[in-house]
Amino acid sequence: MISFDTICEAHDRIRPYIHRTPVLTNQTINDLAGASLFFKCENFQKIGAFKARGGLNAILQVVQHQEGQAITTHSSGNHAQAVAFAARQVGLPAYIVMPRTAPKVKKEAVLGYGAEVIECEPTLEAREAGVREVMERTGAVLVHPFDDDRVIAGQATATKELIEDAGMEKYGSEHQAIPFDTILAPVGGGGLLSGTALATHYLSPGTRVIAAEPEGAADAVLSFRTGRVEKAPFINTIADGLMTTLSERTLAIIRTHVADVLTVSDAEISGAMRLVWERMKIVIEPSSAVPLAAVLKHKDQFAGQKIGIIITGGNVDLGKLPF
Amino acid sequence: MISFDTICEAHDRIRPYIHRTPVLTNQTINDLAGASLFFKCENFQKIGAFKARGGLNAILQVVQHQEGQAITTHSSGNHAQAVAFAARQVGLPAYIVMPRTAPKVKKEAVLGYGAEVIECEPTLEAREAGVREVMERTGAVLVHPFDDDRVIAGQATATKELIEDAGMEKYGSEHQAIPFDTILAPVGGGGLLSGTALATHYLSPGTRVIAAEPEGAADAVLSFRTGRVEKAPFINTIADGLMTTLSERTLAIIRTHVADVLTVSDAEISGAMRLVWERMKIVIEPSSAVPLAAVLKHKDQFAGQKIGIIITGGNVDLGKLPF
Repeated sequence: MISFDTICEAHDRIRPYIHRTPVLTNQTINDLAGASLFFKCENFQKIGAFKARGGLNAILQVVQHQEGQAITTHSSGNHAQAVAFAARQVGLPAYIVMPRTAPKVKKEAVLGYGAEVIECEPTLEAREAGVREVMERTGAVLVHPFDDDRVIAGQATATKELIEDAGMEKYGSEHQAIPFDTILAPVGGGGLLSGTALATHYLSPGTRVIAAEPEGAADAVLSFRTGRVEKAPFINTIADGLMTTLSERTLAIIRTHVADVLTVSDAEISGAMRLVWERMKIVIEPSSAVPLAAVLKHKDQFAGQKIGIIITGGNVDLGKLPF
Repeated sequence: MISFDTICEAHDRIRPYIHRTPVLTNQTINDLAGASLFFKCENFQKIGAFKARGGLNAILQVVQHQEGQAITTHSSGNHAQAVAFAARQVGLPAYIVMPRTAPKVKKEAVLGYGAEVIECEPTLEAREAGVREVMERTGAVLVHPFDDDRVIAGQATATKELIEDAGMEKYGSEHQAIPFDTILAPVGGGGLLSGTALATHYLSPGTRVIAAEPEGAADAVLSFRTGRVEKAPFINTIADGLMTTLSERTLAIIRTHVADVLTVSDAEISGAMRLVWERMKIVIEPSSAVPLAAVLKHKDQFAGQKIGIIITGGNVDLGKLPF
């Protein structure tokens, strides 16, 4: 089990390399929601997403414990950039296995952090085979995007900061000293959600944690009900960061510490995303809009509450917007 | 002449109604520019643009001096929203004359602040006639978008904050205590630019102020050279906030306190705007990207400098992006 000390150690470890991202509010969105929303803006994080936290916490420990001289992972999204970025910080080579169908801009971002990109067929089998080949050839250590306690502890630091800055007496102003009623995070593989749930459990035990998931990648809601790792009945969503399936590790944490999983449609995600762009003037990726979409869809459930929302990232292809 | 005291009084007057917007930096853009850029983010201001400052400073004085019981202006852009917003703050009715071709979303924003919209033909004559009719019918006081010392003093407060927060010893950290080499603002009618130049003149007299203007609305660069208020040879630009011509008032301030006017193409504006969206994860309107486009176009001129840039606003039609 990941303890509170483990999360605090992760925070101390990664603090020199990350931004303490701002917590923003917006009156118009509060009025629309009928609740008081606090957005933890990880779109302003290094590499443009919270994934920098988990990647750094894992890779700094690889160095600390001398586990290997190189890092590898497979990802077509923000985790690829996070590993490339974190490996560069510690001076280790990184080998990122990416499906040949991944957007050119994502590959270029990874190359920009000095990592090597190994292209493979766009299947999970090919990606895992690619990573195995890299590990055998280079001795690289695998940093999994979510099925790793070090990664989960790193992601937990985003919620730790959110609660410290806007949900507890220690740092907050008088107004902010009121604890959150609910904290929402989106769920893909469950790394962020697990970290969110654990940080909330330790720092603000009276706060409910709710997951938000696209209808077009509805595996977590199934797994949450059955208690087994289920696959989504189909995958079709603009929230490209949330297509992954939970692991046994993340499901166990989520079943213990998460109160519910709410699903939203792509139209609801796109509407919430546009609302944030237009009203808050910040660029967020579709996955980031999923929790707000859930709050706006279930207004009765959240009416009058103080709510924390993790904005996961801002890496979006401006040439392919859903509006 | 607008004195430093006038600007400080404006700041005290409007402070309860505005945000002290953040000053943001970005390493990637610094690397691209070869300079150290500090962005004053008025896209996070009330109504999504710096215009809230000038509108408030004028209308609060209308109330203070009991000049009238209603406010009017003609505008199709951010000034319309600024006047509607400011009038609501003081409880006065506002009559906004808008060309019937103005985007529906802009009219709705003005209506949303409780103002009345009077539609007219899309010519300057029709707009001015519309305002005269309103003034005769309602006794409303005109708040001009830029040809008004109260408006200019209000806009000056954005640069006052920028210098206080990032360009002088009083408030800044050790690093920020270094004065700016250059501060850039875009120029349309010259209200913001005049305020920027005056605030800089009083607070940081060693700093050069440079204006940036679209090639497709190149009146200020002409007027700056000839000393007369000139019209642009043609109007064709995505920077919809910068199509206006200077007034005698703004030209006089600009000729005294601005060092140069640089022009940029729409392609350069669009490129700079996209860079800010992608790298800084903030939504800015095309006019806001004009100064950064000028810095990136004239790298030699700005190499190694500490530069302040006014991000004017974030009100952009997401359905009509230039990329």
